[in-house]
Amino acid sequence: MTDEQHFQHGLKMLQTMLGEAEAERIREGWRNMWPDLERLILEFVAGRIWTRSVVDLKTRSLSTIAALTALGRTNALDLNVRMAVGNGATKEEIFETMLHMAPYAGFPAVWDAMMIATRVLNEPRK
Amino acid sequence: MTDEQHFQHGLKMLQTMLGEAEAERIREGWRNMWPDLERLILEFVAGRIWTRSVVDLKTRSLSTIAALTALGRTNALDLNVRMAVGNGATKEEIFETMLHMAPYAGFPAVWDAMMIATRVLNEPRK
Amino acid sequence: MTDEQHFQHGLKMLQTMLGEAEAERIREGWRNMWPDLERLILEFVAGRIWTRSVVDLKTRSLSTIAALTALGRTNALDLNVRMAVGNGATKEEIFETMLHMAPYAGFPAVWDAMMIATRVLNEPRK
Amino acid sequence: MTDEQHFQHGLKMLQTMLGEAEAERIREGWRNMWPDLERLILEFVAGRIWTRSVVDLKTRSLSTIAALTALGRTNALDLNVRMAVGNGATKEEIFETMLHMAPYAGFPAVWDAMMIATRVLNEPRK
Amino acid sequence: MTDEQHFQHGLKMLQTMLGEAEAERIREGWRNMWPDLERLILEFVAGRIWTRSVVDLKTRSLSTIAALTALGRTNALDLNVRMAVGNGATKEEIFETMLHMAPYAGFPAVWDAMMIATRVLNEPRK
Amino acid sequence: MTDEQHFQHGLKMLQTMLGEAEAERIREGWRNMWPDLERLILEFVAGRIWTRSVVDLKTRSLSTIAALTALGRTNALDLNVRMAVGNGATKEEIFETMLHMAPYAGFPAVWDAMMIATRVLNEPRK
Repeated sequence: MTDEQHFQHGLKMLQTMLGEAEAERIREGWRNMWPDLERLILEFVAGRIWTRSVVDLKTRSLSTIAALTALGRTNALDLNVRMAVGNGATKEEIFETMLHMAPYAGFPAVWDAMMIATRVLNEPRK
Repeated sequence: MTDEQHFQHGLKMLQTMLGEAEAERIREGWRNMWPDLERLILEFVAGRIWTRSVVDLKTRSLSTIAALTALGRTNALDLNVRMAVGNGATKEEIFETMLHMAPYAGFPAVWDAMMIATRVLNEPRK
Repeated sequence: MTDEQHFQHGLKMLQTMLGEAEAERIREGWRNMWPDLERLILEFVAGRIWTRSVVDLKTRSLSTIAALTALGRTNALDLNVRMAVGNGATKEEIFETMLHMAPYAGFPAVWDAMMIATRVLNEPRK
Repeated sequence: MTDEQHFQHGLKMLQTMLGEAEAERIREGWRNMWPDLERLILEFVAGRIWTRSVVDLKTRSLSTIAALTALGRTNALDLNVRMAVGNGATKEEIFETMLHMAPYAGFPAVWDAMMIATRVLNEPRK
Repeated sequence: MTDEQHFQHGLKMLQTMLGEAEAERIREGWRNMWPDLERLILEFVAGRIWTRSVVDLKTRSLSTIAALTALGRTNALDLNVRMAVGNGATKEEIFETMLHMAPYAGFPAVWDAMMIATRVLNEPRK
Repeated sequence: MTDEQHFQHGLKMLQTMLGEAEAERIREGWRNMWPDLERLILEFVAGRIWTRSVVDLKTRSLSTIAALTALGRTNALDLNVRMAVGNGATKEEIFETMLHMAPYAGFPAVWDAMMIATRVLNEPRK
């Protein structure tokens, strides 16, 4: 496949998981910082990784949230909580996955992550 | 519930996920280092966390593997690959979850984790 | 012991280290995010870990601050600076412990941690 | 050499990389938190490490930015983006070094770092 | 460009940096663990990232070594020390870059990294 | 003070904490990798940081062990367990400090650290 095809797959994937308006908002943030950041995230992360099979989207979302909780990456956690909802995860599943990290990455990491999830999930529905 | 009840739940949980012989082997390692390490892992990690509902055992295993890949924790990765198999995850799902970490924790973390998974999954079946 | 007993020990421990008003404020934050987070922190972290013997509370506080400085966990650092004061650590001991982390976790981690400690310790006394 | 000589070398080094006004502003921040933090950063980090030969200042700046991107250290990233500019790195080289971290530390780390670099580099020129 | 073109660019890049025999040995390790790991590293890491312009190969190597020192990724450090040599970095530049990490990631990280570099650079020349 | 004076203080400090034979063995390891690594560790880490007041040596040792457990730095953990013993910490205090890290850095970090401590503390007494 060509880069452009991966880009289009990634774009569609992002729109499906986030909705078109939110996908555009998040892309704009990347693009304004560094256009190649947007391009490589769309082509590679969304287009090559999230489009893979074997593990379904909801399980991928929860695994990603687990890892980002452990790593403490703020911006990506915010985004992946939104994506998890788009992939069918409930609020309970998101918080339970974060809590599951307590014995693996420590309670402070869970605390930081839940603050982000709380803020995102309490936003007024659009 | 009492600590002893949590301990028994945790022990049963560990035996179900690992088999009795492997569960005993791993417990012995913890016990020989520091008895309270075994006790708290059995009571809290196995007995209080892994026994929770909302997220099923296989999804918990894959989320744990994702986080341990990101954190680079050697001993726990070895154990959790075994537990994931016991929880019904295929070799493909385990490696796919690790590969999914490439854009989140970097390829070096994936490489280190896959070396451990390869070693564990290539052991002769007991 | 039962979970409820651990919870009560943890609650008393938290109140002793933070004062009753601050303990309630911090618990409320956890509870509003996810009730089980509050429960497990009270029962396990405060009730099972901080109540252990062999190492005294002030030394536990300084060790925790050292580790959180290295890990860069914001919310927990704020809390543990308050707890350290409650456990008898002076401002000098807290900053000295953070400075001791410079050759182990790097100066950037020390800088980030000292900003949090400075903010907490400059709050008007209640 | 004496500590005072290292301090003076470090001070001169910091002023060269940041300009005198910015160097004073940043030193004041360290001094106000903990005077020994300022002293050890000037003597050791600026005076003993940055004054070493073999690797030139611009390459040191880009390597530091790469590592701080991976570690996610906020305050030090802000400072090192400024220092990198003073050491002759272009905006393109700074962002390219951050992007190079995507396969090593993950895209979330790159995203967080680029937000800081964007803010710093968009400040009105003084 | 197509995936296959990126793969071929990445392969050529890897061979240039490591030599053909070492490139094949390292690829075989990835392929034997998980074929898609080899494919994505060749296409994306070697083919899309290392082929980019703006920052030269030697500076990329030193930045990568800085970040991997901070992250403590064993296998990738071994590989990147070899790549750095292929990209024209001297032993002195590699160790100096690691030493530069002391105030940013701590001396323990430098120690671990230098052990790997020492082992790699002391191998008999092939 | 001069660098040479810090070096001598650091050397004496290291010998006091480790014994002369072990101090020489560990210095030789650093020196053989990179002479400046030995020099800066002796002058700065041992000579400038460990010689500071306000926090006593045993508390510094336990805080360092806590942080290295969280960071997972293998070589430095081995060394700091030896230094902790030299600074008067009992085996119980060392393991208790590591266990205290379970809710802060996760059980996998504690497991890895206790394996190192077990190996060091089971060595035949010299």
